[in-house]
Amino acid sequence: MPIRPMEWAGDHLRLLDQRRLPLEEVWLELRTWEDVRDAIRDMAVRGAPAIGVAAAYGLALAARSLHDTLPGHARVERERSSLEPARAGLAASRPTAVNLFWALDRVMALPDMGPEAVLSEARAIEREDLEMNLAIGEHGASLVPAGARVLTICNTGSLATAGHGTALGIVRTAYAQGKVAHVTSCETRPRQQGLRLTAWELMREGIPFSSIADSAAASLMRSGRVDLVVVGADRIAANGDTANKIGTYALAVAARYHGVPFVVAAPSSTLDPSLATGDGIPIEERDANELTETEGVRVAPIGCPVFNPGFDVTPGELITAIVTEQGVHRPPFSFGPG
Amino acid sequence: MPIRPMEWAGDHLRLLDQRRLPLEEVWLELRTWEDVRDAIRDMAVRGAPAIGVAAAYGLALAARSLHDTLPGHARVERERSSLEPARAGLAASRPTAVNLFWALDRVMALPDMGPEAVLSEARAIEREDLEMNLAIGEHGASLVPAGARVLTICNTGSLATAGHGTALGIVRTAYAQGKVAHVTSCETRPRQQGLRLTAWELMREGIPFSSIADSAAASLMRSGRVDLVVVGADRIAANGDTANKIGTYALAVAARYHGVPFVVAAPSSTLDPSLATGDGIPIEERDANELTETEGVRVAPIGCPVFNPGFDVTPGELITAIVTEQGVHRPPFSFGPG
Repeated sequence: MPIRPMEWAGDHLRLLDQRRLPLEEVWLELRTWEDVRDAIRDMAVRGAPAIGVAAAYGLALAARSLHDTLPGHARVERERSSLEPARAGLAASRPTAVNLFWALDRVMALPDMGPEAVLSEARAIEREDLEMNLAIGEHGASLVPAGARVLTICNTGSLATAGHGTALGIVRTAYAQGKVAHVTSCETRPRQQGLRLTAWELMREGIPFSSIADSAAASLMRSGRVDLVVVGADRIAANGDTANKIGTYALAVAARYHGVPFVVAAPSSTLDPSLATGDGIPIEERDANELTETEGVRVAPIGCPVFNPGFDVTPGELITAIVTEQGVHRPPFSFGPG
Repeated sequence: MPIRPMEWAGDHLRLLDQRRLPLEEVWLELRTWEDVRDAIRDMAVRGAPAIGVAAAYGLALAARSLHDTLPGHARVERERSSLEPARAGLAASRPTAVNLFWALDRVMALPDMGPEAVLSEARAIEREDLEMNLAIGEHGASLVPAGARVLTICNTGSLATAGHGTALGIVRTAYAQGKVAHVTSCETRPRQQGLRLTAWELMREGIPFSSIADSAAASLMRSGRVDLVVVGADRIAANGDTANKIGTYALAVAARYHGVPFVVAAPSSTLDPSLATGDGIPIEERDANELTETEGVRVAPIGCPVFNPGFDVTPGELITAIVTEQGVHRPPFSFGPG
């Protein structure tokens, strides 16, 4: 069975609780939109595409419950305004997740807001994300040489999306084609998504890999044990400058120094042609306790000052290729509007 | 009061329990050589020079206890052979620590093995290490520009030595000279010595700093916020190739890419002219649970494969200067015998 972060179960949403991974596989049964909001807010589900899909199902649950209480002749506009509290509540669950707003807006713009129509749209959002990732996987696998030892960071896999994944989706497709000899998965400090989630996915699928501290990646490249680096993206400017999880830039610098190809994978919705370069992307600083604590256990001195940027920007000139569902883009990058 | 990892207290050794840092400052009272052996083995004290000093005091405790039980006319050779079990026991506490053997051999070669002579030698080993570090600090501070923002990794400070430290000793001296505006302390995965110990030292002394994830160092350099990188060394080959804590090499590559000077600091005993290059230095692989657990709390999936090299090798051509107690060495490096 392919890994999926959630599945619609007839009258409720089953959602894999990612906070309990990798040690426990617990499925939540979400029966109201408030359940979905809480699951997003409390990070039982994470990864921008996966959050978007979950939010759409949240509206489907809200529409079902309205359907139970509204008279059958209720008009579309009445349904739409009745769904507004659910939309607003879901939108407030993770205020910075672009896919969340996008998915909610898409559902709220339906000509028909009845429960079947909303559920059908949520299913379409999920299916389309999966199809995009499969396309990214196919395009990206063409860049993977036979016997490749691939290095990646963070979790860009099935758990972060509707399924298959983006950068990890390329690894999956290339592995299925017999081209991947070994995967190196960076821990991804501070939140350790690589060590927790990517390792869990790779173990589940029997893909040979090892987890490393992020700081070990450069020396691994020096020893000739990395043929390709594949990473995801949070936002890509018109010139290819790419914002992604902190540590991505360090990998790009090391890859360039060692002559290792560096590939970015993301759906085309990640492209932001309104930004000429990555200089305009603000670096979000996250909470200090992501670094100073692990599972609530304090490691650093009390009051220790911390600089904890959530992501960094890799300039387009360090990127060998950017893979979207539309194909493989080569430098110099120039992503225009539309 | 300057930070010291241990102090002789008339009839016993007081030793700061580094396992309890940074949250608690607990001093152990070590009254027998077996107490010292256990403290080294269980890593209440760590850092090669600090371990060497502690071991010498362990022999001093053993000599005291022999003095209490042997008749006053006991001969030197009888004392020496009586100390042999303590020497062997201390030597077995951390089998790979070169300074440990060096300190034990130095004491065991004394012409007089009486308790005063052994204690005096232990004190000399401690004092000389401190003096070397103060000299390293002076030489190294000449490389620090005014207003410098310095980045370092691991703990190379007072806790790892008899006091002051090597790379962190340079930071201390330069800060005392008014030249250091800010220190960035890398967490140093997997064991987090930077986040636990270097942060504790810097807080104690009021030196302005912030802790970062190791993976954030390169993007910090890109944003122009690092003027100098200073690191320690475990072993330096004749051509300057330097083995040090994992992550050092990644910093050297990023420093070169961004034009930031990269300085290595170590006592001259770290130079190993018998090695022409760093290629001959084996990369010690350490236990997987250093990465997969924090304070006994499991993070990774059970059975997750891990590659956990304890250190890496930075080629001499990436190093701007190597600072020892003898002065500042510039490339091309050529450390001959003697």
